[in-house]
Amino acid sequence: MEVQIAVAKVNKYATSESGDTLEVIERPNGGLSVVLADGQTSGRGAKAVSQMVVRKVIGLLAEGVRDGAAARAASDTLFTDKKGKVICTLNIASIDLHSGTIVLSRNNPAPMFICRAETVDLIDGPSIPLGTSRDVRPLISEIALEPGLMIIIYTDGLTHAGSRRGTPMDVRETIQSIVEDENPSPQLLADTLLAQAVRLDENRPVDDISVLVIKVASRDGDNVRRMSVRLPIERQSKA
Amino acid sequence: MEVQIAVAKVNKYATSESGDTLEVIERPNGGLSVVLADGQTSGRGAKAVSQMVVRKVIGLLAEGVRDGAAARAASDTLFTDKKGKVICTLNIASIDLHSGTIVLSRNNPAPMFICRAETVDLIDGPSIPLGTSRDVRPLISEIALEPGLMIIIYTDGLTHAGSRRGTPMDVRETIQSIVEDENPSPQLLADTLLAQAVRLDENRPVDDISVLVIKVASRDGDNVRRMSVRLPIERQSKA
Repeated sequence: MEVQIAVAKVNKYATSESGDTLEVIERPNGGLSVVLADGQTSGRGAKAVSQMVVRKVIGLLAEGVRDGAAARAASDTLFTDKKGKVICTLNIASIDLHSGTIVLSRNNPAPMFICRAETVDLIDGPSIPLGTSRDVRPLISEIALEPGLMIIIYTDGLTHAGSRRGTPMDVRETIQSIVEDENPSPQLLADTLLAQAVRLDENRPVDDISVLVIKVASRDGDNVRRMSVRLPIERQSKA
Repeated sequence: MEVQIAVAKVNKYATSESGDTLEVIERPNGGLSVVLADGQTSGRGAKAVSQMVVRKVIGLLAEGVRDGAAARAASDTLFTDKKGKVICTLNIASIDLHSGTIVLSRNNPAPMFICRAETVDLIDGPSIPLGTSRDVRPLISEIALEPGLMIIIYTDGLTHAGSRRGTPMDVRETIQSIVEDENPSPQLLADTLLAQAVRLDENRPVDDISVLVIKVASRDGDNVRRMSVRLPIERQSKA
């Protein structure tokens, strides 16, 4: 088997910093964790919050702390620091090679989708962001790693795309139309979802948008780990 | 402009963990840092060392500590912990959007290559790994971000490939032959270098090998940040 991870991410129109932070980190006992946080509001303040949350979580995961405990610790830190006035969503997706599962922790009202073949399941259920009160807990789902599995996680910029203009995004329908094609790559799925949202916002995204797609495939290639990153650079501001 | 980062990474033959650790992290003031460490020997012990070094460095970079100071701190920590008996190489490549440069910090006897068009420059010069003594300093190069620039960094598994069999790897020649083709992608360059090394080791790599390629290109696409990761999974060992 192999796990393929794809991310597509865009800033709110006319802001130079995204309030969304996403990092991928190796787990100390093998496997990877992807950590995605969306800080309240946008721009520099939101970036500082989401970066703080992600740093806290990846630091704890690196020490071997379990995902749920790391999310709770980040929430307590944020609550203590901001006295409940600033909140932040958090998703952690961990490829755990010991248990042979993907562990999904969610403190985010935005749902997730889980696809197998052409079946698209919505994982919803009330989930509250970090920093809202003491003792905030994530919802945790654990799913066996098996070829054909695809998981789609996103920040609420995707959910809200187009809604100001009365043409709201239908995330499920977009996913459904893509997975009906034969064996889409996770990057194609992430890119298509993001492009659809940006189009509905008339090319001026109303919020930061991040889309994360994880796919489990049967292995048809070598045993090389690969990573690629593309970072567009705006014209330099020295500020 | 855009920055494209590609990584290809393989374990030493018949080991389940690489002694090389590579992480990419967002810098607190914008841009990215790629941190690559190679712990002495191979397998679990080497992994623990390279992970400790990378964690230390990314933790400090996240707090806004400069790259050179982070490298020195990681060296002091390793030296204190292991009393000079365990060493670890370290490369940090930072895309610094404020200065408009790539900052390359090296504590690694293995050289780097810097390409512009078809010109391939070797960056060598004595550089010692972390943990060898007190007050180890990195060599630092700072290079303006401009389209056409390509930087190649690797661990010594690449340098030593084939040498036991009397057919040593010629890294420069391999790079030269690829950059003579029109505008190779960084992933193609990383994959080709790694594949050549694995071939010279007769498909049983004698050491962990990691290749990192950073390319600066003129922007021809959208302003979407993208990342993709491929993680091959060996048949599960529960050990």
